[in-house]
Amino acid sequence: MSKIAPLSGFPEWLPEQRMIEQRVLDTIRAKFESFGFAPIETRAVEPLEQLLAKGETDKEIYVLRRLQAGDDEENKNLGLHYDLTVPFARYVTQFKSELQFPMKRYQIQKVWRGERPKEGRFREFYQADIDVVAENELPLWFDAEVPLLIHEVLRALPFPPVRLHLNNRKVLEGAGRALGLEDLTPVLRTVDKLDKIGEAGVTEALTTQLGLTASQVEPLLALTRIVTPDASFAEKVRALGLKHDVLDKGLDELAFVMDTLRELPEGSAVADLHIARGFDYYTGTVYEATLLGHEAMGSVCSGGRYDSLVGTGTGWKLPGVGISIGVSRILGRLFGQKLLTSNRRVPTVVLVALHDEPSRKGALAVARTLRERGIAAEVFHSPVKYGKQMDYASRKGIPYVWFPPRSEGATHEVKDIRTGAQSSVDLAAWSPAESDRELRVSLATK
Amino acid sequence: MSKIAPLSGFPEWLPEQRMIEQRVLDTIRAKFESFGFAPIETRAVEPLEQLLAKGETDKEIYVLRRLQAGDDEENKNLGLHYDLTVPFARYVTQFKSELQFPMKRYQIQKVWRGERPKEGRFREFYQADIDVVAENELPLWFDAEVPLLIHEVLRALPFPPVRLHLNNRKVLEGAGRALGLEDLTPVLRTVDKLDKIGEAGVTEALTTQLGLTASQVEPLLALTRIVTPDASFAEKVRALGLKHDVLDKGLDELAFVMDTLRELPEGSAVADLHIARGFDYYTGTVYEATLLGHEAMGSVCSGGRYDSLVGTGTGWKLPGVGISIGVSRILGRLFGQKLLTSNRRVPTVVLVALHDEPSRKGALAVARTLRERGIAAEVFHSPVKYGKQMDYASRKGIPYVWFPPRSEGATHEVKDIRTGAQSSVDLAAWSPAESDRELRVSLATK
Repeated sequence: MSKIAPLSGFPEWLPEQRMIEQRVLDTIRAKFESFGFAPIETRAVEPLEQLLAKGETDKEIYVLRRLQAGDDEENKNLGLHYDLTVPFARYVTQFKSELQFPMKRYQIQKVWRGERPKEGRFREFYQADIDVVAENELPLWFDAEVPLLIHEVLRALPFPPVRLHLNNRKVLEGAGRALGLEDLTPVLRTVDKLDKIGEAGVTEALTTQLGLTASQVEPLLALTRIVTPDASFAEKVRALGLKHDVLDKGLDELAFVMDTLRELPEGSAVADLHIARGFDYYTGTVYEATLLGHEAMGSVCSGGRYDSLVGTGTGWKLPGVGISIGVSRILGRLFGQKLLTSNRRVPTVVLVALHDEPSRKGALAVARTLRERGIAAEVFHSPVKYGKQMDYASRKGIPYVWFPPRSEGATHEVKDIRTGAQSSVDLAAWSPAESDRELRVSLATK
Repeated sequence: MSKIAPLSGFPEWLPEQRMIEQRVLDTIRAKFESFGFAPIETRAVEPLEQLLAKGETDKEIYVLRRLQAGDDEENKNLGLHYDLTVPFARYVTQFKSELQFPMKRYQIQKVWRGERPKEGRFREFYQADIDVVAENELPLWFDAEVPLLIHEVLRALPFPPVRLHLNNRKVLEGAGRALGLEDLTPVLRTVDKLDKIGEAGVTEALTTQLGLTASQVEPLLALTRIVTPDASFAEKVRALGLKHDVLDKGLDELAFVMDTLRELPEGSAVADLHIARGFDYYTGTVYEATLLGHEAMGSVCSGGRYDSLVGTGTGWKLPGVGISIGVSRILGRLFGQKLLTSNRRVPTVVLVALHDEPSRKGALAVARTLRERGIAAEVFHSPVKYGKQMDYASRKGIPYVWFPPRSEGATHEVKDIRTGAQSSVDLAAWSPAESDRELRVSLATK
């Protein structure tokens, strides 16, 4: 047997961390559902061909092969999905006749990317997505509703505050067209690298690799420097002297979205014209988000509008808009910096002590009664000395040890093992302290 | 782009079915936690070498490869896990110094097997596992507690009743030794096929392939025919005239477990000596379970004790016992036969109608208030005719449409779109009918 070792890029948590992760995922889910989004889950695999059709992602895909596959199977290449948007688009196309539109769905699953792992960059990670897909027309309203909703979801989580950064692909595309550029895909992909390689790197790539002139690069970079807390970005773009119908449309759409987001607390959302997003399928509004105090880790939440991703090749028009929360990336960071803690290492609230074998049945009945009252309880497995049983509770962080009566007329007793306080109690009435009843997650400030 | 089509063996559900699946998984999780089991999740992949070391499963494994992997990576073979026991064993070994024993964990994840798909046999499916692993000694009590707990979990689910079938590997192994057999692994694997290939097939395989004589095969098959609702199996085995220490130990262990399970309702658990389990790592008690009325689909819940799976090669002794619920197999069957239904197709309870653009803010505030009161609500996206908005609610199965006041002094009104009844209501006090508040899942009888 090979050495047991962690696999780089495949994070695993301890039970107490997994309990926090579950709480985070539950909160996200409850919020998504409270807004009426319905859940789906898609298979982990998609035909490789479909994964490759959707963007510059070919290096990141994990391909599957049955260990003992016959020759006939070799061409049926399947890959693990690298996001939840492409599988959702396929799902909507496949099940269209059974779905109702506008379809609002959420999806919380792991995705896989074969990227070189580094801090905060995993090969297997959770994403939590919401998307809306409509038939024929998707009102611009949804481009605003999605970030409004995500802001409320994120605020409910034990995370540092998040700032949303918004742009519109049509702003970048329209600016490019105003500058006389034709093949915009490589230009957008290069601009998307601003955070990674900086303005010098992007300038170099745009001029050397894509052949742009300085008079094209300069206004483009000037545009990407514009960041405003409201719709005032439009004025600044117009001051650059760029003119194109697509640019105007992009500015109008982004202004509508930013106007709607004015109701959010100050600093929650900014128009940030350097946001491009790597995937090719975005056609309008695009979103990124940074965790305040953790800006170096890049975007933790991203998405956008895609007018032609769903139903490709069918003749149907199914525009969509959505956003994805990078749950594992955020948790990985917060766990790594020991910023997230909770009051629990196991779900158990009460350990019922076992005095001897004949009393096991009674101990099991006590635990059952507690569970029926919503209090997680387990019976110690062996009738060893109480000291050893309390030691087990203490090591596991179980707050209470229960001693059933050992003779007719005696009472139940409960010990709080943190304080040592022990008292007679009524099984039908006893409750743990409110702060011990449920998992409580706290965020430490750095 | 390739044709959109389902992939055989990779089931996907509609949103209303996914809501039922989530409810089932939530119930399982809540029950596991109420017994004090702590959650973990392991990465989807394990080194191929470790997956192959654990049983006759090599044909079933999906191997991963990065699409653009360099030559140096070719040998770092990773495979998708085919169960949750082998990854858990690796996890315990890897994190041993940070865990407390006996460790009680649950794990609910998808697993993958490259088997030929057929009805009820998937390539990607959910398992929900509990296991207990102890240091050095694992009391036999846990072999009984695990099925007790699973019985309670299954009873809480909207499933047909389940019957547990129990055996002990030592019974089969001891019987084999009593018959003078030495290499028992292939014999157990063959006996495990009784349900698939029948007694004639097993007899054929035991004699032709493994060289057993008729005087060895006959008592072995006689033993596998023994099924009792209690510990009376031991007497019947002894009547076969087989004698071996390992057999005696197996009979004693199984008798202890069956005696403990006497408290379950009649018919919930039987000793069934033909149960062998395919995986090689089981060393004592083994479990299977059948869904009453759906026996043809085989076992829906299985597991057992493994004394040497965890910590292999480390010198540590970490015996474990556990059981796995085949959630997707059961749901696939019940969905396929349209036996599971619910009161909901989306989570939304109230659709807030939108009269015109200026009233959007007020409509959003109504929805927010309802959500704060625990009532899932969404605002219709466009100020189209009310008839169209009600049609949307009707198509999605949203039970109520809310009309905010359109003038000073007017009241809120709510329509139950199933009955058409509409009434004036107080936003701060209104509640949906109790039966509309939450998802309710029902099992139809066939």
